[in-house]
Amino acid sequence: MTRFAFTIHATEGKARTGTIQMRRGEIRTPAFMPVGTAATVKAMKPEAVRATGADIILGNTYHLMLRPGAERVARLGGLHKFMNWSRPILTDSGGYQVMSLSDLRKITEEGVTFASHIDGSRHHLTPERSMEIQRLLGSDIVMAFDECPRADQDRDVIARSMAMSMRWAKRSRDAFDAGGEHAEGAALFGIQQGALDESLRRESADALRDIGFDGYAIGGLAVGEGQEAMFATLDFAPGQLPEDRPRYLMGVGKPDDLVGAVERGVDMFDCVLPSRSGRNGQAFTWTGPLNLRNARHAEDTGPLDPRCTCPTCGTYSRAYLHHLIKAGEILGAVLMTEHNISFYQQLMQAMRDAIGAGRFAAFAADFRRDYLGR
Amino acid sequence: MTRFAFTIHATEGKARTGTIQMRRGEIRTPAFMPVGTAATVKAMKPEAVRATGADIILGNTYHLMLRPGAERVARLGGLHKFMNWSRPILTDSGGYQVMSLSDLRKITEEGVTFASHIDGSRHHLTPERSMEIQRLLGSDIVMAFDECPRADQDRDVIARSMAMSMRWAKRSRDAFDAGGEHAEGAALFGIQQGALDESLRRESADALRDIGFDGYAIGGLAVGEGQEAMFATLDFAPGQLPEDRPRYLMGVGKPDDLVGAVERGVDMFDCVLPSRSGRNGQAFTWTGPLNLRNARHAEDTGPLDPRCTCPTCGTYSRAYLHHLIKAGEILGAVLMTEHNISFYQQLMQAMRDAIGAGRFAAFAADFRRDYLGR
Repeated sequence: MTRFAFTIHATEGKARTGTIQMRRGEIRTPAFMPVGTAATVKAMKPEAVRATGADIILGNTYHLMLRPGAERVARLGGLHKFMNWSRPILTDSGGYQVMSLSDLRKITEEGVTFASHIDGSRHHLTPERSMEIQRLLGSDIVMAFDECPRADQDRDVIARSMAMSMRWAKRSRDAFDAGGEHAEGAALFGIQQGALDESLRRESADALRDIGFDGYAIGGLAVGEGQEAMFATLDFAPGQLPEDRPRYLMGVGKPDDLVGAVERGVDMFDCVLPSRSGRNGQAFTWTGPLNLRNARHAEDTGPLDPRCTCPTCGTYSRAYLHHLIKAGEILGAVLMTEHNISFYQQLMQAMRDAIGAGRFAAFAADFRRDYLGR
Repeated sequence: MTRFAFTIHATEGKARTGTIQMRRGEIRTPAFMPVGTAATVKAMKPEAVRATGADIILGNTYHLMLRPGAERVARLGGLHKFMNWSRPILTDSGGYQVMSLSDLRKITEEGVTFASHIDGSRHHLTPERSMEIQRLLGSDIVMAFDECPRADQDRDVIARSMAMSMRWAKRSRDAFDAGGEHAEGAALFGIQQGALDESLRRESADALRDIGFDGYAIGGLAVGEGQEAMFATLDFAPGQLPEDRPRYLMGVGKPDDLVGAVERGVDMFDCVLPSRSGRNGQAFTWTGPLNLRNARHAEDTGPLDPRCTCPTCGTYSRAYLHHLIKAGEILGAVLMTEHNISFYQQLMQAMRDAIGAGRFAAFAADFRRDYLGR
């Protein structure tokens, strides 16, 4: 069985479409990974997640180490068995959530000490412990442990943080490789840092390339810098990474972010936006987002999106979804999440098809005309 | 097409099993109706509700008149189309919820004035308006409008209330019959009142029989009187109602309530217990209820119930459900509700089979031994 192989089937400009082969299944790229934070893609059964076209989902090391605990998941047979998802799972390293969710964190060269947002208990996370947790979970794509600093800080702060993340990347590589049987089946991705700075990004990319990874993530974006600054960074960052390896833009994003990032050479994405927005009553459609709380949908018998092929659009009216969302009904969250995740997967499939057919430029222009109205 | 026909296939003691035939489908009795309060059986897709074996669901007039509104549901094509449930729907009359949920109620011979629990808006409900709302919703089994008094009041209070409910039952019958096309396809049930008093229950039953209904409900129980008092009342109340018509015990109950009520001649039930308990982490099993929040389930790889045939038990461990419930995940509510509704339907099927085979007494004894441990 292939441990990890990335094949690019077609390119158009910087955009690529391909396939990652792994033991637990194939991942078609560009790929969107629904986020399964706490061992569940919120409000969806795993078979419904798969039916949207998702080839891989993401699990969060930070959440799972706190509850139910990595050792417990391992005793229960691993994350795949625990949550009934047999295809690939990518786990993040915990670094980003420690920074954004926990309290009382202390960062040293050794690692990070923090207090759980659930019960205040103290925890320690290092590159070595992050690798161990991801191994205990049974992750297919393991992410190196890194620090994700705020992008609006001084260049020397960003530079020092990036340099430490590169030392942590090497420790992650070594710890992963010492993982025995798990390392023989799983892949390890490095994470480029350097915020919006081209030379720091270059330095980070070179350091990662020297260590050597199965794939390369672009970290430190989608942290409030705005789409323009993100796209400006993506104009150079993906090209600094090895061309024959998947490039994963972490935590992104809106549908128009995805199209713009694929245009700039990105292959993989994850984001809570479609699921979180769905629970809050926002639906994504080919003609832009819709707020289902709006009274104008109260008697609209049409579907969320007439082009959408998801079960929600095939069965339920905007009027019914408006009612469910207004009434705070769980079924509203279920149906809206299913639509949004499905819409994201339909968007990825449309991009894969367009790149394969050499008409991605036209697709992107049409998409922006319809979605953004420009 | 048959508007309404009840056929009793077998009896054992007072217990009966049979079939109600209606235009939208067949209802096997004894029947449990999952509660779809606000046009959704909470946390379940309608196809999942049907897959549990439910032949009919219940909708709440009180909730639906307030949100989204009966006229709006009618403009959208009726409740069945709105919520994607094509089989029979029974709607209650609104009387019980007005008493239990709303504020500022004033009860007169004409009807009830109350303030919405959602936005405080004032509403008026009469037998005539209740029939109109249930017609606008497109209900298959319409319930007469009644007052449901607290059972712990003086006998003369109960007697006066019951007498008014019987006058309201006649007004309900007249208003229903004036409903044109809807009345030609739907059925109307009267509701016996009289709390725990045998002679008042007799008087109520006689008044209803004089008016004439398709089926007869036993109201005013499961309001805090306890199982012993409820069973004592059920020792005489069903027998006061016409033998050739379905008897529906409203708002009941726990699994052992259902078995005891079927033993006493009841054919139909509804209750929020399986869905509400499921959302709160309580699972019903053949060996009694389980609280999934309990830490003893944290590493239990077994299913909720090894005898259960539901998708939750076929796929997920108690450990995973414990995790989802503790984490407040929507999927926990989804999977637990699906199990509980399915368990209730399996219990009803087991009772139907046992009565059909003439072994219901043995079934009930076995059930109590396993479920109650006695």
